[in-house]
Amino acid sequence: MAAEKERGVEWRINVADGTSRALEAESRFGLQRFMSKVGSFFQRAWRIGVNEPKKSIHCVKVGVALSLVSLFYYMRPLYEGVGGNAMWAVMTVVVVFEYTVGATLSKCVNRATGTLLAGALGVGVHWVASQAGERFEPIILQTSVFLLATAATFSRFIPSIKARFDYGAMIFILTFSLISVSGYRVEKLFEMAHHRLSTIAIGTSICIITTIVFFPVWAGTELHYLITNNMDKLSDSLDGCVTDYFSSNSQTSEKTLQGYKCALNSKAAEESLANFARWEPAHGKFNFGHPWLEYVTVGASIRSCAYCIEALNGSMNSKAKVPDVFKKHFGNFCVRLSNKSSAVLKELAVVMSTMKKPTKIDFMVEEMKSAVQELENALKSLSKQPIQTAEAKAGDVVTLVEVVPLVTVSSLLIEIAARTEKLAGAVNGVAEKAEFEVETSEEAKKGQKLKGGKKIGQEDEEDKAMKTLQKV
Amino acid sequence: MAAEKERGVEWRINVADGTSRALEAESRFGLQRFMSKVGSFFQRAWRIGVNEPKKSIHCVKVGVALSLVSLFYYMRPLYEGVGGNAMWAVMTVVVVFEYTVGATLSKCVNRATGTLLAGALGVGVHWVASQAGERFEPIILQTSVFLLATAATFSRFIPSIKARFDYGAMIFILTFSLISVSGYRVEKLFEMAHHRLSTIAIGTSICIITTIVFFPVWAGTELHYLITNNMDKLSDSLDGCVTDYFSSNSQTSEKTLQGYKCALNSKAAEESLANFARWEPAHGKFNFGHPWLEYVTVGASIRSCAYCIEALNGSMNSKAKVPDVFKKHFGNFCVRLSNKSSAVLKELAVVMSTMKKPTKIDFMVEEMKSAVQELENALKSLSKQPIQTAEAKAGDVVTLVEVVPLVTVSSLLIEIAARTEKLAGAVNGVAEKAEFEVETSEEAKKGQKLKGGKKIGQEDEEDKAMKTLQKV
Repeated sequence: MAAEKERGVEWRINVADGTSRALEAESRFGLQRFMSKVGSFFQRAWRIGVNEPKKSIHCVKVGVALSLVSLFYYMRPLYEGVGGNAMWAVMTVVVVFEYTVGATLSKCVNRATGTLLAGALGVGVHWVASQAGERFEPIILQTSVFLLATAATFSRFIPSIKARFDYGAMIFILTFSLISVSGYRVEKLFEMAHHRLSTIAIGTSICIITTIVFFPVWAGTELHYLITNNMDKLSDSLDGCVTDYFSSNSQTSEKTLQGYKCALNSKAAEESLANFARWEPAHGKFNFGHPWLEYVTVGASIRSCAYCIEALNGSMNSKAKVPDVFKKHFGNFCVRLSNKSSAVLKELAVVMSTMKKPTKIDFMVEEMKSAVQELENALKSLSKQPIQTAEAKAGDVVTLVEVVPLVTVSSLLIEIAARTEKLAGAVNGVAEKAEFEVETSEEAKKGQKLKGGKKIGQEDEEDKAMKTLQKV
Repeated sequence: MAAEKERGVEWRINVADGTSRALEAESRFGLQRFMSKVGSFFQRAWRIGVNEPKKSIHCVKVGVALSLVSLFYYMRPLYEGVGGNAMWAVMTVVVVFEYTVGATLSKCVNRATGTLLAGALGVGVHWVASQAGERFEPIILQTSVFLLATAATFSRFIPSIKARFDYGAMIFILTFSLISVSGYRVEKLFEMAHHRLSTIAIGTSICIITTIVFFPVWAGTELHYLITNNMDKLSDSLDGCVTDYFSSNSQTSEKTLQGYKCALNSKAAEESLANFARWEPAHGKFNFGHPWLEYVTVGASIRSCAYCIEALNGSMNSKAKVPDVFKKHFGNFCVRLSNKSSAVLKELAVVMSTMKKPTKIDFMVEEMKSAVQELENALKSLSKQPIQTAEAKAGDVVTLVEVVPLVTVSSLLIEIAARTEKLAGAVNGVAEKAEFEVETSEEAKKGQKLKGGKKIGQEDEEDKAMKTLQKV
């Protein structure tokens, strides 16, 4: 002990022969590294829990639902009512309880339908087989299991079925195999079917109640936020990268600049949320039968804008130096166009999130188009009016190669404007199908004020951008 | 009947009062529409089955595995050995059997580990609870179910766990709840655990044998093909759209032109395949521990090229007319560069698919770079040497606006070349990590011949492109 103290704190492990051995530097290092890895894992987990309280609440909800269902085992009267099959209630809760209401409902419906269909078919096949005599019975049962399992598995590859009934097909295979196979031994098929269905009913109702009553997470609302957030991020990215490019002292944060990448990667999330949202009852501002599939179209339009912004980012990072004088001349028009486009994107996000009929969009799209026209005119005039600079003498011809990056940026901005217009069309489609309300006069006034305020803010921003440009 | 015959074939339905009634035109129409819908559904299903025989084979494999496992019910000696728990074997097969070997293995390992861990923990908690006296027993059990279910559900939100152990966490919750809850009633916990584990072992081994022995579909191989196919498609799209743009009588099929879209949307597939492939043993050309995650990096580089090709397609569809003379002048260089880039992409696909160390890539990348240089020089010279045309008189200044689309296309092509170079770097990374073999001298000779042939073919293509251009 004294020797140990002399050497300071030390790591020791017990060895098989009863003595203890000091850990070598290397393995101690390994242990430290392992501990720090575990530490950082828990840190990350903690951050997820803190940043997304909805997810933490979901975990507690699963715990609550399981506790509720396990009461069926603890209370004797219930236990005797549902019998050993109560296990199926626990299983249903574990398997069916999902993050969003839509996903849970979809799984509940799938599970119930799959079980019912397969149960009816299983009893039918079992009856036919029992009529066929002892010799053919196992053959008929085996063949039916083989054929139906093959067919149901195949149906899971068909996109339209995979999207909505994948889980149901699996439950169908499971139930049919279990029934037609166990029916050979257990003679009380109907009783078993009755028990299975009642326990599944208990499990699904506990799930549905827990998921809807306590802090529900609606797939529709999540999709709604995902789409509007993506539009907002796209708008900020576009604005940020164009302003940064044309003025040296504007510094948009990396996070804002990279915002468009969220839109690039959200196709799968959008599609699955839209599929789940279709199962959900009316909630919040959304009726049952809200055109969720149209949101997928809007998402695709957003992505098509995002691809262009990606290319724009790429060409802005190219090393080619542009003379400041051209940058200044073009900058005015490019920043103006990108401001107009991002304003349209922002307004579309507002339309989607407030669900009011778009009133200003047409006007803003026209403004955007006129900005496109101005930029095109600037391109036209550039070669006709030689620009006076310190470097270039009067009458000098503009060297094309000097403006190549600017021309590219300009035409990508024009392309982005065209795609933004298409996006506006897609949003209009949603507004019509979902019958967005018209603003009442009071709301309109409020909106006017708000928009007025916004417009002033926006012009301020434009002015700022122009000023920074003129300083260059 | 006679009256019916006079009116020709007719649809009749039975009505509640015993008479039959002819179907109205509208509902007959509805029925027809329904039938045609059903018909087209089966047509689509048939097409999936014919075009992707692997999927059809998978369905048959599921049928075979289920038939095998149901033998455990039919054969009395086995039945008595595994008892009523044989149900779990059927369930394991239905739930665990996936399309690829990797996914099946991953689910098997997850299921076994989850069950073992939860079983051990469940028995432990049950022992602690039984020591605490009858009053505290249900409280301890309930609390442990609540806490562990909450924690395990939370772990499913952590990306690193979700990617690999999502299913295991679910099975953990399921088994723990079932054991700690049913343990309260059933006194023979250990016997039950033994049965559960043996049936799961039977189920998983049947799955693993069926999936590996009969026509295995390896996630690794699928990923391999997905990546190489995407590169090929990208190369064809790039070549096709540039050639189509610069020559009026070249018509690439729409399918080839839109090929790059496959790459845009395959992120999710690539990531899940890479995760599954990590579970797979050595197969074909791939060892265990093949750097599958590097393939995801390559996939991301492919997508970054695809974004640019998307933007390129967009700007090529713009209405702005370019004078033929400029198109011809630039076309030579643009087509040349796109040919070089797409040749690099094709060669990278060959490297990935043959898994031989890239030998020609560096050289081809240099060629591509010199094509970039030539295009840049062409841009530079354009404004200095006024082009002699019928329209423009000698000495005329090039009007910038006329060449805007060409400049955009050129700089996007340059950007695509830069991204292709990065992709080559990513492929090099895979080649190093996976220790691709060096070509033997014989193979090299063969390759030389092949490549020679290819090169001639390629030059032919280039020549053809040039010729079509000159005709314009």
